[in-house]
Amino acid sequence: MSVTEAVLARLEADFEGATQTWLDWLRIPSISAQPAHAADCREAAAFAVARLAEMGFTAGLRETAGHPVVVAHHPGPGGDAPHLLYYGHYDVQPADPEALWHSPPFDPVLTDGPHGRRVVARGAVDDKGQVAMWLGAFRAWHAQTGSLPCRITVLLEGEEETGSVNFKPFVVANKAELKADIAVISDTNMWDIDTPAVSTSLRGMVYMQVDLKAASRDLHSGMYGGSALNPINALTHALGGLKDAAGRIQVPSFYDGVRDISTRQANQWSALGFAEEAFLGNVGLRIPAGEAGRGALERLWARPTADINGIWGGYSGPGSKTVIPSEAGAKISFRLVPGQDPKGVVEGFKAFIRARVPADATVTFSVFGEGPGIEIPTDSRFVQAAMAALQDEYGRPAVLIGCGGSIPVVETLQRELGLDSLLMGFGLEDDQIHSPNEKFELRCFHQGMRSHARLLGRLGGG
Amino acid sequence: MSVTEAVLARLEADFEGATQTWLDWLRIPSISAQPAHAADCREAAAFAVARLAEMGFTAGLRETAGHPVVVAHHPGPGGDAPHLLYYGHYDVQPADPEALWHSPPFDPVLTDGPHGRRVVARGAVDDKGQVAMWLGAFRAWHAQTGSLPCRITVLLEGEEETGSVNFKPFVVANKAELKADIAVISDTNMWDIDTPAVSTSLRGMVYMQVDLKAASRDLHSGMYGGSALNPINALTHALGGLKDAAGRIQVPSFYDGVRDISTRQANQWSALGFAEEAFLGNVGLRIPAGEAGRGALERLWARPTADINGIWGGYSGPGSKTVIPSEAGAKISFRLVPGQDPKGVVEGFKAFIRARVPADATVTFSVFGEGPGIEIPTDSRFVQAAMAALQDEYGRPAVLIGCGGSIPVVETLQRELGLDSLLMGFGLEDDQIHSPNEKFELRCFHQGMRSHARLLGRLGGG
Repeated sequence: MSVTEAVLARLEADFEGATQTWLDWLRIPSISAQPAHAADCREAAAFAVARLAEMGFTAGLRETAGHPVVVAHHPGPGGDAPHLLYYGHYDVQPADPEALWHSPPFDPVLTDGPHGRRVVARGAVDDKGQVAMWLGAFRAWHAQTGSLPCRITVLLEGEEETGSVNFKPFVVANKAELKADIAVISDTNMWDIDTPAVSTSLRGMVYMQVDLKAASRDLHSGMYGGSALNPINALTHALGGLKDAAGRIQVPSFYDGVRDISTRQANQWSALGFAEEAFLGNVGLRIPAGEAGRGALERLWARPTADINGIWGGYSGPGSKTVIPSEAGAKISFRLVPGQDPKGVVEGFKAFIRARVPADATVTFSVFGEGPGIEIPTDSRFVQAAMAALQDEYGRPAVLIGCGGSIPVVETLQRELGLDSLLMGFGLEDDQIHSPNEKFELRCFHQGMRSHARLLGRLGGG
Repeated sequence: MSVTEAVLARLEADFEGATQTWLDWLRIPSISAQPAHAADCREAAAFAVARLAEMGFTAGLRETAGHPVVVAHHPGPGGDAPHLLYYGHYDVQPADPEALWHSPPFDPVLTDGPHGRRVVARGAVDDKGQVAMWLGAFRAWHAQTGSLPCRITVLLEGEEETGSVNFKPFVVANKAELKADIAVISDTNMWDIDTPAVSTSLRGMVYMQVDLKAASRDLHSGMYGGSALNPINALTHALGGLKDAAGRIQVPSFYDGVRDISTRQANQWSALGFAEEAFLGNVGLRIPAGEAGRGALERLWARPTADINGIWGGYSGPGSKTVIPSEAGAKISFRLVPGQDPKGVVEGFKAFIRARVPADATVTFSVFGEGPGIEIPTDSRFVQAAMAALQDEYGRPAVLIGCGGSIPVVETLQRELGLDSLLMGFGLEDDQIHSPNEKFELRCFHQGMRSHARLLGRLGGG
């Protein structure tokens, strides 16, 4: 029996205990967005510190201008074992609307579903459940071997759900302490409950607001119509040209640096058998939007987008009001793929709008977010080890998938610490994160913990 | 001394009394929009009935589903004297925000301005002040001659400021009683305080709302961007093509029936010396919008427009939200000129939008208003008499102007009773109608009353 096999046996013997730790953690309502829960956030952090200390970590709460960060270090076996930085977050989304929950959000319950038992609670999966998996893997290793097979740093933040405002400066201020060989993050999904996945590309984002001001006050459209500039007409004209008939985005230099996906990637993704019809059908749509001539997953994971997320101006109440408003505005986000320069997109969008808006309008831009697309090298020893560990656990190859959204921490760790991230997550599409009745399948939690234990064995030579 | 001159002398002798009637009427807060003022509306109507009865009218309150209508008849001298229908409204706009008034809105005060004394109160000009002018003219004629020189019907409504919902059915139900040769309305402006005006064209309007529905719920733009239809993108694309680079409206068949203005009209309007730069400069704009190659007054009075009056969709709060919303909508109004068919514009706009919106969006249209542009024949004996009366009073020719807005009652009277309207108003641009500190210049009131007395003389052979 290999060490890893012994660790897995220990994990099975102690599965009840690992589950209990997870459920206890879920009972602490660590809602970072609500000041009334500040003490709960601190308690949830302290809870993690205590669990880590039990396993031989040097662990502590570190103050920030907001909720504290947990940092813990374990030396591992010494020698040339790799140094892994496990990132997660102990804060959760607010539970409202509470009326839609079938059980109290902070009183975790086990219920039955099509995949067996599941835990229902706020944070069940995002991210306490996924963190509890790797804590459980550490626990089994520690119980079986008295140590861990790799050098490990744990970094748990308490403000992921509120934009990580204080987390980024914390990372910058503690660069030396947080150095490692790779970041390991479980905050993503599997392909499906039978098919594990490693996410190797993330789209970045530029999020901007454009405000147009025209007249100094609202005008009557009978009196001024035909003479006065209407900022809504101007704004729709400008934004109405964002894409051509084939869905190609018309912002100057927008596609600079965008690469077509490789044939290998195209084949891999095509083999996943993604049913875009069903994906759209679930939300009441039928016809794919986006660029013509591109595959469905390619459009979702490897092509940039331009979505208007909000627009406003003038009168929106019942009936009619004949106003030419003095201003109008919109929020626009661009999902970026690796290779695109966010600053170039910001400038390109400004130029695009300025060229399409009449000289009499005053245009103001705000930038609310600006991060590049991220690509994680799939040939690294870490990704390879994760693929092998997942194959061992699931008996089938893990798939390398993209992620259409951004995970800002991945960009922060890459930019500030030079760390790539290994994104090995065990959530499912229907886990209801951020919604009422968030759940995590016990089977996902179980196999996720086993996969993490296997990964440690693969990397630590166990 | 002609009869008219004697009447004018009598008017001067009794000017104080006529002014007092006006001020007394202003003290009644007849706000039609506010149910708490229903009794005040009735009192304001009864006030008018009493004044008309004093001058030999058969006058009464007529019930509707809303505020009552005043109808009064005076037989005049008999014979072939013309039959004039004087229309006005006794209701006023709400006074809020009351904090911005310098004196209580229903306690009229005389203050000094650059044109001499003025009366400040809600309704000072719109429309009690303008109605009080022609009541004052009747009073002088009645006092001097014991009768009126024309057959007269008075029609005062109490819901002009709330859309005349019950007025239109009243007119339809009383067609025979309301027949006349011409409608006389004082609810418009002069060109300036020295230059009287008769309005001979009014733009009509089609007011529509378009709603686009896409997905059955809001979507995350990271997860769905590149696959799901974004209704704001679709709406801006559709509306963004409303006009070409020269400002020409692209709705199919939109310009059917639109005629260029005559050279005579172009010359008249050009002679007015309208300073569009100052007109726009007053509201913080510099560059005329609207169709290229058209005169300023032509664009304001004789060319159709397409203005987006409101637009909404998605997130408009602070910062960012990466949402692909499920719906978006906009309100659009078209100002129409005589010759355009409102129904054709409604259908054209529907076709325009449908052709530009992806098949996956559900499009719904609402129509909130639909009235044609109106042209009043300038060679009629009534317009000619008004021009002569105004020339007599002001010592300079009155100008024939257009009006960029609509006056729905004019269309109602034309459609239901076949009556043209003589629009002879004495308001000024800066009268603040519908705003705090509404005022009417005493000089405008005085000369307006004299002009009405002269008009009656011209038409009645006095």
